[in-house]
Amino acid sequence: MPRLAIHRLPMAHPGDLSALAALIDAGRLRADDIRAVIGKTEGNGGLNDFTRGFFTQSLMHLLARHTGEAPEALAARLPCVLSGGTEGALSPHYMVFSVAAEASGEAGLALGTAFSPATPNAAIGRMAQIEAVAAAVRDAMAQAGIAQAADVALVQVKAPAGRGGDAAARTRDAKLLMALSRAAAAFGVGTALGDIAPDAVSENALLSDTSLYSNRASISSGVEVTCNEVIVFGRSAGWAPGIRAGVAPMRDLLDLQGVQAAFRAAPGEVLGVIAKGEPDAAGTIRGHRHTMLGDTDIDAQRHLRGALGAIVAAVAGDGRVFVSGGAEHQGPPGGGLVCVFAREPGFTG
Amino acid sequence: MPRLAIHRLPMAHPGDLSALAALIDAGRLRADDIRAVIGKTEGNGGLNDFTRGFFTQSLMHLLARHTGEAPEALAARLPCVLSGGTEGALSPHYMVFSVAAEASGEAGLALGTAFSPATPNAAIGRMAQIEAVAAAVRDAMAQAGIAQAADVALVQVKAPAGRGGDAAARTRDAKLLMALSRAAAAFGVGTALGDIAPDAVSENALLSDTSLYSNRASISSGVEVTCNEVIVFGRSAGWAPGIRAGVAPMRDLLDLQGVQAAFRAAPGEVLGVIAKGEPDAAGTIRGHRHTMLGDTDIDAQRHLRGALGAIVAAVAGDGRVFVSGGAEHQGPPGGGLVCVFAREPGFTG
Amino acid sequence: MPRLAIHRLPMAHPGDLSALAALIDAGRLRADDIRAVIGKTEGNGGLNDFTRGFFTQSLMHLLARHTGEAPEALAARLPCVLSGGTEGALSPHYMVFSVAAEASGEAGLALGTAFSPATPNAAIGRMAQIEAVAAAVRDAMAQAGIAQAADVALVQVKAPAGRGGDAAARTRDAKLLMALSRAAAAFGVGTALGDIAPDAVSENALLSDTSLYSNRASISSGVEVTCNEVIVFGRSAGWAPGIRAGVAPMRDLLDLQGVQAAFRAAPGEVLGVIAKGEPDAAGTIRGHRHTMLGDTDIDAQRHLRGALGAIVAAVAGDGRVFVSGGAEHQGPPGGGLVCVFAREPGFTG
Amino acid sequence: MPRLAIHRLPMAHPGDLSALAALIDAGRLRADDIRAVIGKTEGNGGLNDFTRGFFTQSLMHLLARHTGEAPEALAARLPCVLSGGTEGALSPHYMVFSVAAEASGEAGLALGTAFSPATPNAAIGRMAQIEAVAAAVRDAMAQAGIAQAADVALVQVKAPAGRGGDAAARTRDAKLLMALSRAAAAFGVGTALGDIAPDAVSENALLSDTSLYSNRASISSGVEVTCNEVIVFGRSAGWAPGIRAGVAPMRDLLDLQGVQAAFRAAPGEVLGVIAKGEPDAAGTIRGHRHTMLGDTDIDAQRHLRGALGAIVAAVAGDGRVFVSGGAEHQGPPGGGLVCVFAREPGFTG
Repeated sequence: MPRLAIHRLPMAHPGDLSALAALIDAGRLRADDIRAVIGKTEGNGGLNDFTRGFFTQSLMHLLARHTGEAPEALAARLPCVLSGGTEGALSPHYMVFSVAAEASGEAGLALGTAFSPATPNAAIGRMAQIEAVAAAVRDAMAQAGIAQAADVALVQVKAPAGRGGDAAARTRDAKLLMALSRAAAAFGVGTALGDIAPDAVSENALLSDTSLYSNRASISSGVEVTCNEVIVFGRSAGWAPGIRAGVAPMRDLLDLQGVQAAFRAAPGEVLGVIAKGEPDAAGTIRGHRHTMLGDTDIDAQRHLRGALGAIVAAVAGDGRVFVSGGAEHQGPPGGGLVCVFAREPGFTG
Repeated sequence: MPRLAIHRLPMAHPGDLSALAALIDAGRLRADDIRAVIGKTEGNGGLNDFTRGFFTQSLMHLLARHTGEAPEALAARLPCVLSGGTEGALSPHYMVFSVAAEASGEAGLALGTAFSPATPNAAIGRMAQIEAVAAAVRDAMAQAGIAQAADVALVQVKAPAGRGGDAAARTRDAKLLMALSRAAAAFGVGTALGDIAPDAVSENALLSDTSLYSNRASISSGVEVTCNEVIVFGRSAGWAPGIRAGVAPMRDLLDLQGVQAAFRAAPGEVLGVIAKGEPDAAGTIRGHRHTMLGDTDIDAQRHLRGALGAIVAAVAGDGRVFVSGGAEHQGPPGGGLVCVFAREPGFTG
Repeated sequence: MPRLAIHRLPMAHPGDLSALAALIDAGRLRADDIRAVIGKTEGNGGLNDFTRGFFTQSLMHLLARHTGEAPEALAARLPCVLSGGTEGALSPHYMVFSVAAEASGEAGLALGTAFSPATPNAAIGRMAQIEAVAAAVRDAMAQAGIAQAADVALVQVKAPAGRGGDAAARTRDAKLLMALSRAAAAFGVGTALGDIAPDAVSENALLSDTSLYSNRASISSGVEVTCNEVIVFGRSAGWAPGIRAGVAPMRDLLDLQGVQAAFRAAPGEVLGVIAKGEPDAAGTIRGHRHTMLGDTDIDAQRHLRGALGAIVAAVAGDGRVFVSGGAEHQGPPGGGLVCVFAREPGFTG
Repeated sequence: MPRLAIHRLPMAHPGDLSALAALIDAGRLRADDIRAVIGKTEGNGGLNDFTRGFFTQSLMHLLARHTGEAPEALAARLPCVLSGGTEGALSPHYMVFSVAAEASGEAGLALGTAFSPATPNAAIGRMAQIEAVAAAVRDAMAQAGIAQAADVALVQVKAPAGRGGDAAARTRDAKLLMALSRAAAAFGVGTALGDIAPDAVSENALLSDTSLYSNRASISSGVEVTCNEVIVFGRSAGWAPGIRAGVAPMRDLLDLQGVQAAFRAAPGEVLGVIAKGEPDAAGTIRGHRHTMLGDTDIDAQRHLRGALGAIVAAVAGDGRVFVSGGAEHQGPPGGGLVCVFAREPGFTG
């Protein structure tokens, strides 16, 4: 039966894969066993952040030397979800998710991955993308042997950012297209999991009907992918135990209790943390004005990641938190969600 | 006997004093009773942040209409400590500290203020500034009737930033001069309170001997002041009770327990929060690399305020936190301190 | 007959009016003669740039002390057009336009001003604003005694930015509302001057039909005004000679010849320079990709002002250039315009 | 005899080498003939700009496929000088300098390259670096067959940035160390060419004696190199004619005449442009205050490149200009220099 392992590794800069190379060289991790990589790089996280592409290129070249595949072929089967921007207390790092065979066991945390077909500019923020993501979620669940939606802990998606200025796209505004892509992917996840009712979903509801959201959808979008890369985490009878995933929504940016709930749901040694959030669109938090949306000097997402990242890092006591902004339909509006991966007490890895 | 009151007020922009004007017009606060103002404005907090000057000008014009003094005379007697930058979860606001006479009472929170003589560029970061601040702290304690250093909760100072490029100054680097000014003021507070041994103090120790610090010194520096403006908070037998100040150090940026300790030390309705912190100079927090010091796009202080402000705001459940960076010798190195003003349970104001 | 004078003055910071105060105190300029102020302050020029409000407040307080009017009354009759952002080679400065009576003369440069009625959020980017600006241009021309549109050199407008998040507004997007306001004001100027055919004008054409523009419209928008403040410059028989205005369009950001043409059209000592421009929306200049629109760290307008300002300043040999971004329908698309005020050779002032 | 060729190529993003790949695949350029690459990428040009490393990695992988060398070996012999930051009117691009054999000819533009030994942190900004760069300049001249210093047009150096926080380094300040590295390299070039008198040179004169400079030294520094990579351009009898280099100093940032002089010195089709400059350290240009040095939101170098780049691009009529800030001892203080490569009229390539 498969056993999931998680390694959380440091990087000296976005092209530095030496920590992973050392693990592989030491025989502690087989390159063939790697199923997904999720990481934070120290760029600005915006349109002109190329730290994600740099990391991906470096990763694929490293793994290609070990697996014998071409870097391009590896990139087409291995989800690599990067979020730029390690503002404030955050630390650049990446989580390597690998799966190895084991003789026996009982129900544990499973991982499945799937890539949607290529999503052209014209399909971004359209029903086509919503349905493609939903299908990919179901494929990834099937691959992982996760029997029902209730067993899913989190679905992480890297969705295409699209290209600004394209007349065929739903909008020519590059930032808006990026947001529509995240929103459509969240709808895809939400409908696949039953968190969002399928008949409530429409293209017009994207970025508009804030009552529709999933507390288990975490979406990044970037120019470096052209399809929707999906990673599903959940409990499955066919997987070895030892790792638990705790997930909880945050009702607003200051919801310390929500963050603490996610950590309580996964007691034990923390192996990785994923958080999503967004600046409240009305410009206030609990009645007090925030200034994230009107700052001409610092992008709203950089403000958000700096604030949310610090809160989650303070609870974790550790700056290695994957925080990503743009939480449209991912967790409550103006809030977000936190997912903690931890080694179950009593297990060693 | 004097009674201290604290009003925490919103601003729509840095020139907006309408909330204070309304309090005065409604007879709820006398302009003559105001002793100090401490606030956060939404600029960048750097050298070219003029939101502080704009607020100060607006404040002094408003009060001048009520007290009959010239705005310049008011500014010379009323400490107005502003910190620019409301990154992330923070909310622009200001705290108005006022003192009114009351017939009787027992020991309560006292406030005293003092202005040092003008501190020319050449004196910044020199023994002259250290001693001038120490003398001003003693003057302010005497004014407040605080009998001993142990009774002081917090000393807030606005120190002059100095002017870059001045050959007479200790350095021509404007940012470094600003840091030296904060450091010298912290040494002044620390020696006056006995937190720093006088014979350990020297000009060379500024920004260098990180073992010297006070957990009760909070210093801002800015180009808009030319002397050291000092505000002392502490317990005094001659003041009316009802407000408590809780102060605690933070050992590093992720010290959630330190933040919670300050709130526990001042139970009751929170009236205001002051926090100081700094990015760890070695570039790591608990062994993990942070990127605040090498980001060409976002100033290190903006990163710091965004992260520290979010953590304190999450504990407070309220973004109205006065967070200021540049915590040289203010709290443990790489950490900082938090001060909470709260209405003691059972009192109403 | 009236004589126009232009003083171009330095500022040490956005609240520094000392150069103007000195001129008034020395009897070289009467506060009552001032008709308009146009200046560049060193903020970021964006939504959270309060250097404009700070300067305006300081200016009105200064003039109020001399004219005896209330600052609010002065602000309601005196156009004060500020543009934040002195990127690169630019220098913070302001131009004071004043008019004094003179016994005799011949045709010279005239100035007229007008304020539209208050423009609520809901009217911004609507026909109502277009028509209100056109009416104000006609009023200002009449005030100046400029007989025909062909005699107008430049119309400078400060239009309201509107308020983001308002459901009654044409859009909830604050930046887009700001752009719609500039576009509507440009249509107002263009139709009043005959540069844009009235029947080509519609709300849908705003920001969309790039073939509609005026080479004589220069529009800023800001949150500090709530109506459209209009300043018209042109030749009039009733005004004293001595100052000439040279205006020329720029066909793209690199149009050095366009800049030089404006300077050639106004030979003599330069008294002030106004320039407008915008990043090419297609993302290229003469076939080569620019990166102004996709930079997450620097606002597109700051890029634009830095580049355009440097080119104009290099031709002028002087960094005191009023450069403002957001040139929707002001000059050719992707380009802009330059206006030079110069003392005619042979005249002294 | 060798013939120099220059290709100026576009990039869609910092990892995009497709234009070079297409030239090689079409047989128009042999990978083995490439001697140096100089380019502008669209990062911020600061410490955390990884677009340079991304481009270099992509370039070396591409060439390695064609030459059969390991990417690391290629990087150790092929100078790749990248400058991040394409502010304003600038366009991301790179110049590929290649040399092919030709049967006969007369004196033309020659190119020579040399790498200094590794320069550890402790040697940066020390006499050791100055002398190592001077030696590398002489080696590169010898390789190119440039007989005398008077024949050298320009020396382009990529110097190591060093690592901040290193106690062994001359300073712990990462930005200052970067500036010292550029200054030392400029002193190395200047002494090798006779532009700076060897006995005027000392470690103390670095960044301090502004009277010492070379109008033919252009230095970038970056964390991605660990030695000094030197490229010398000059006239040599042994090289084929057809390309000319025109170089001229700029006495300040607004020196349009200086820019024009460089273009006049190299008439014909422009093949590439290199410019260096710096914000005037006294804070004024021709008596008027600039704000590049005190802006907390935009790095001084980004201001500088935006302004200087626009001026040079306006003269060139083309945004593909290699502009780099940090011109310590490179051209007159507060100014800089411009170098234009052009195909001599009558030649085709």
